[in-house]
Amino acid sequence: MTPANPLPKLTLVLGGARSGKSRHAEALVEAQAAPWVYVATAQAFDTEMEARIAEHRARRPEGWITRDAPLELPEAVIAGPAGAPILVDCLTLWVTNLILAQRDVAAAGEALLAACRAVPGPVVLVSNEVGLGIVPDNALARRFRDEAGRLHQRLASEADSVLFMVAGLPMRVK
Amino acid sequence: MTPANPLPKLTLVLGGARSGKSRHAEALVEAQAAPWVYVATAQAFDTEMEARIAEHRARRPEGWITRDAPLELPEAVIAGPAGAPILVDCLTLWVTNLILAQRDVAAAGEALLAACRAVPGPVVLVSNEVGLGIVPDNALARRFRDEAGRLHQRLASEADSVLFMVAGLPMRVK
Amino acid sequence: MTPANPLPKLTLVLGGARSGKSRHAEALVEAQAAPWVYVATAQAFDTEMEARIAEHRARRPEGWITRDAPLELPEAVIAGPAGAPILVDCLTLWVTNLILAQRDVAAAGEALLAACRAVPGPVVLVSNEVGLGIVPDNALARRFRDEAGRLHQRLASEADSVLFMVAGLPMRVK
Repeated sequence: MTPANPLPKLTLVLGGARSGKSRHAEALVEAQAAPWVYVATAQAFDTEMEARIAEHRARRPEGWITRDAPLELPEAVIAGPAGAPILVDCLTLWVTNLILAQRDVAAAGEALLAACRAVPGPVVLVSNEVGLGIVPDNALARRFRDEAGRLHQRLASEADSVLFMVAGLPMRVK
Repeated sequence: MTPANPLPKLTLVLGGARSGKSRHAEALVEAQAAPWVYVATAQAFDTEMEARIAEHRARRPEGWITRDAPLELPEAVIAGPAGAPILVDCLTLWVTNLILAQRDVAAAGEALLAACRAVPGPVVLVSNEVGLGIVPDNALARRFRDEAGRLHQRLASEADSVLFMVAGLPMRVK
Repeated sequence: MTPANPLPKLTLVLGGARSGKSRHAEALVEAQAAPWVYVATAQAFDTEMEARIAEHRARRPEGWITRDAPLELPEAVIAGPAGAPILVDCLTLWVTNLILAQRDVAAAGEALLAACRAVPGPVVLVSNEVGLGIVPDNALARRFRDEAGRLHQRLASEADSVLFMVAGLPMRVK
């Protein structure tokens, strides 16, 4: 059965904290035929993060195949099942993990794009927009902000659809 | 007399600091027939805040009925006069006050929505978007950001009109 | 030769860090006939800033006349050549420099607007949106945020075109 609103090949959902990014992205994927693949980049370092992960997980209905990929995201994207819609949540945590592991973020971004192109189904990437506040005091936060911003630009240039979430509502950027 | 641009029942005006939210919301309300009700949530804790409050107050013309409601916002919304357009400025300070008073923000948000539905006139809610910078260092700021974001999503889902202000100009989100 | 997409008299390009503001603004100007005037407000206080300036400079092709104006921006805008498209990058650094030099930011903004009106060619102003995060801890950062926000509103009210950049893509605000 063809879904009412087929997803384009690559969708990028950007937005601030608690802007409804994950919920909107999940709704986009769940409008397609199951099964759906959920690739989680979060690593629980503390109880606050554990609670956030648990809250996200509890919200998702049956039909989701969940896969953890704090670092090896391209591999998780191509792991199948073939043709299943894929949701990656979220790229900002992935960038954090890459920086902490001293990986090349730009090269990893290209590998992610190649993986998105290699799979037959649609991919939805969720990421936090973090560059709209005052310049952070510490150099690591500035580096993270720069790497995330550059990755967003690169992915947005290749994406078929780019959404900017405000208060749970999508604004179409592309 | 029917105003040229009647306001919908519920309008949410979001934006960053100094994005022209208050000014735009005031203009929306002042385009309706007076009297207008101004519900202020600000509590002046220091001279910087006092100066901001005085600046906002000095800008407003005759015709405004001003009411302070740092915590009891739903009560202030339904206090009349019946049918008068109501401006609430701003929700972010209300959320701060609620957290400091150890109130349940989600329950308060539902009470606010009920009050907005109960009054016969239009309501314009102003709030700061605070989730688009780097993750804050301290847990209280993160909690505030989460509570504000969740409240925005809930109100936006019920609002007839949602605006995102950039440099004094409204972008229509809904 | 008339360019395919003539620029309006005054364009304001806003966006977060690494949102592709400079690149987009450069593309707008480079679509006009050369020579183009690049007015840089950056002052390199440290090696991180030096690296950013060098990266921006290396990206720009032949045809640009570069001028440094950490403070005397209006003078740099009217310095000619007459009719050449002008790119100012960026206003947020200019505001920082003005505050540190204890100049009146509002008066400087009016002088900038007058200079933009006085030149015969189009002007593109680039600036960082910094007001969408948590309220900064320190008073100087809050003052900077307020001054920048007020300047953006003033310029946007006079601009023919206002763009908000998200992940390298322009959203039209005006």
